[in-house]
Parts: sequence; C-alpha cells; structure tokens
Amino acid sequence: MDALQTELLETAHEMADAAGAAILPFFRQANLSEDNKLARGYDPVTEADRAAEQAMRAVLARRRPQDAILGEEFGSTEGESGMTWVLDPIDGTRAFVSGTPTWGVLIGLSTPEQVLLGMVDQPYIGERFWGGFGLAQMRGPHGQGPLGTRATSDLSQAVLFTTFPEVGSKEEGAAFRAVAEKVKLTRYGIDCYAYALVASGQVDLVIEAGLNAYDIQGPIGVIEAAGGVVTDWQGGPALNGGRVLAACNPQLHAQALDILTAMTRM
Amino acid sequence: MDALQTELLETAHEMADAAGAAILPFFRQANLSEDNKLARGYDPVTEADRAAEQAMRAVLARRRPQDAILGEEFGSTEGESGMTWVLDPIDGTRAFVSGTPTWGVLIGLSTPEQVLLGMVDQPYIGERFWGGFGLAQMRGPHGQGPLGTRATSDLSQAVLFTTFPEVGSKEEGAAFRAVAEKVKLTRYGIDCYAYALVASGQVDLVIEAGLNAYDIQGPIGVIEAAGGVVTDWQGGPALNGGRVLAACNPQLHAQALDILTAMTRM
Repeated sequence: MDALQTELLETAHEMADAAGAAILPFFRQANLSEDNKLARGYDPVTEADRAAEQAMRAVLARRRPQDAILGEEFGSTEGESGMTWVLDPIDGTRAFVSGTPTWGVLIGLSTPEQVLLGMVDQPYIGERFWGGFGLAQMRGPHGQGPLGTRATSDLSQAVLFTTFPEVGSKEEGAAFRAVAEKVKLTRYGIDCYAYALVASGQVDLVIEAGLNAYDIQGPIGVIEAAGGVVTDWQGGPALNGGRVLAACNPQLHAQALDILTAMTRM
Repeated sequence: MDALQTELLETAHEMADAAGAAILPFFRQANLSEDNKLARGYDPVTEADRAAEQAMRAVLARRRPQDAILGEEFGSTEGESGMTWVLDPIDGTRAFVSGTPTWGVLIGLSTPEQVLLGMVDQPYIGERFWGGFGLAQMRGPHGQGPLGTRATSDLSQAVLFTTFPEVGSKEEGAAFRAVAEKVKLTRYGIDCYAYALVASGQVDLVIEAGLNAYDIQGPIGVIEAAGGVVTDWQGGPALNGGRVLAACNPQLHAQALDILTAMTRM
C-alpha cells in the first residue's frame, strides 16, 4: 500500500473504533424496550445510529476533509478528492433491537465507478473484516488473519444466506427461491454478517433486494478483496444498492446470476 | 445456594469450559469445507461434537459420577442420584458449518419432572447464560450480570424467533404463522441463541418443533430462572422436546399458546 492507501485504511479503522464506542452503550440496554422508548420519547437505535455516524464524521473532518460523505443518517456532504465515504452506522437495526450480534458498522470508500475499500465491523463480538488496496483481513476472538472466499464450484454444494424469507417483492422472492431450490443449505436472518462470512470462506452466496448504497459498499469492498464477486441481478455494478448477488467466486456467481436474471427479466 | 447446588453449578461451568475448548479449534477452519471433509473422510462438526461431549463426560466422571447422562452423541449413561445431565455439545450444527456464532453448548440438569439447572454457552463470542437454584446470570463481552425476561404483555408488541421459516410439518408451520401474523416482528435463523435472548430480556417468544430433550433442557433452565415460561404447544412440560413455546412471561405465553393449541388440535 502507498502512503495515501495506508492513511485511508487507518482512517477507516479509526472510524469503526469510534462508531463501536458510540453504539455499544445502547446495545441490549433495558431502555430499548418499546415501553421505555415511548415513555422517554426517543428511539435508542436511532440515537445509537446518529451518535455513531457523528463519531465517524468527526474522524473524517479531522483526517479526510477533502473526501465526500454519504451517510444513512445525515445524508451527503460534498468533497473534492473524487472519493466518497459511504456509511451505515448500524446495518441490521432489527437485529440490533432484538439483541442479536449480527448487525454491523459498514464503511465503504468509493469512486462513482468502484469500491476502493470496505469494512464490516461487529463491535459486540469484537470482529472486524476489511478489504481493499490488495488486502483482505479480519480480526476477532481468534486473532487476525487473511480473508479468502471458498472454491465451491457448483450450486448444489453452496450455502446461501438472506435476511428475510420474503426477500423483497413477489418477483424477487420467486427469483430467490429458484436459486434456493438448487443449493445445499439456505439460512436466514443474520443481516450484514452474512457478507462477512462469504469473505471469510464460510458460506458461498448472499442474495438480497431493496438495498441502499450504504448497505452494500462496505461488504463489496471486503468480498471483492477476498476473491468474491458482487453484482446486481443483471450482472451490473451493485455499489448503488438495489438487488444484490454476492458470491464466493466467478463460477458460482455465474450460476446464480443465470437464474436471477431469467426470473426477473422484464 | 446450598453446597450441593454450588457443586452442581461449578460442575456445569467446568463442563462448558471444557466443551468450548474442545470445539473452538474446529470452528471456521478451512477443513470444514465439503471437499476437505470428503478427502479426509471425516466430518469436522461431528468431530467437534464428539470431542466436546467426551470433554463434558470426563468432567462428570470426576465430579459427579453418581448422576445419569443423556448426550446427543453418546446416548444414555445410568446414575443413582435421580438427576440427569442432558447435553448437546453443539446445538445448531448448520450455524456451526456456516461460521455463524449462534450455535451453543447446551447443558441441562433435570429430574424426570423438571429442569433444575440450565446453561447456554457461546464460546466464540465468549458469552454464557445460566439459570437455576434461584439464580439467572449471564457473562459476556460486556461483563457479568443478572438475566430477566421482558414484561411485554400483548402479542402485538412481541418479537418472535424461530430457526427455519418452515418450522416443521405443514400443520406446525401454519400454527407458527398464525402467531407470527399477530406479532410486531418475526426473525429467523439464530438457533439456541434465541432462547438466550428471551432470558436476557431482548426478545419475547421462540417457537420451534421437532426438538429433542437435549435441544431444550439447557434453555428451559435459563429461561425459567429468568422469569419466562417454556412448555409444549398444549401447555405441558417441554423438557422431553417436541413442539416448544418459550415466552418471556405467563401472560404472553398464554396468548401464544391459545393460538398454537387451536391450530394443532387433533
């Protein structure tokens, strides 16, 4: 990595550290209950989301004021470097309010054409996954090590994840199920954590719909750096969100893409 | 707690420590891939399962030889104390092989009538939940503290979990969906971890079918000690498995039970 790339990666780590510190005091607190939420007149997950995005923006204001920002909570801030930080302070708010440690802090750094750097952080478990500039790494309870996707070459051997069984619209759900019928195992419900598992070589496919840019840029950076492929359901770029197919390698990606494309043809 | 209860709880902690140490070397290892599994002629999750149950049985042989054992991997061992340790070394093997840290080591201690002590341990995250003898506690990345279920009093405010969207048979799936239609949020896919979240006051209901005694005795001990209710779908004891309804309190339990009973009446 050159000096700029090192600076950008260090900035991402500092942002994730700041976001995690801002969020954890809200995770699994009693005041997350609906009653307290109404009584106190605020929504703790929204509070945590905002505090985390503010913490990340403070790091950027100090270290990278020349870059643009697109955040889930506070929208767009212009820049002059040609690069944009794309931030989802808590991806998986339903996981968050259910106490499940499968939500994550998502950080992407991109040009309009491609994701340069991605990070997925789960601060409760203490796990972080990042990729970009020729590097794909994770650290967690077992220590730090390289990421790498699986070599699974046929759908019949693949493990597939999505978050909600309905996936999206009726058409999107049917397309998902057409892939699910071909795979070895389909699992549900773990939000952005599933993308980290693709990058870690644990699972093979994630298929989702209705995503925003900030839901997917962090995962794209990590998965692509680890050897995987992330596109929309027509094989085009996914960095602006929408319907997303993430696969562990080009061969498996092509097999799943054929089905999704055929099932959603206009 | 009296001296015997203290000894039993310490034994359970030692068993969970031993099981976690036996399992973690197998979790997320490259040789979990299907190819390696075939090439090496063994199934790592089964290896981990067996190693963990053997480790727990070794603790029992030393500390509690007078107690019976029912384990998922090695079946029944007779005892003379009237108490049985009911062990699932890895509950959630599909989570395990997918790299998702929602599998758990389940330990129950029971008489034929009731669960005396339950433990749910997730060694990768470093989280342990236990209940019995008037105590309900957890420890994890945030430290140690008491468990307590939620006061949610109406289904319309409840968060419901199950592992597989299909739940079980066609009739069982329909009964589940009849409850799911009434709740605020339904989530899927996190195995035994969902029971720990009921005990932790994070979610309200778990509904599953087709369970074995060793799948549910650990959770029963933890949830009951934390203020929750666990029965089968007719309101009877669930400690032998089958169809299970776990609820955060008696009021919510009754509302869900009414629906499940009506939907599965012979």
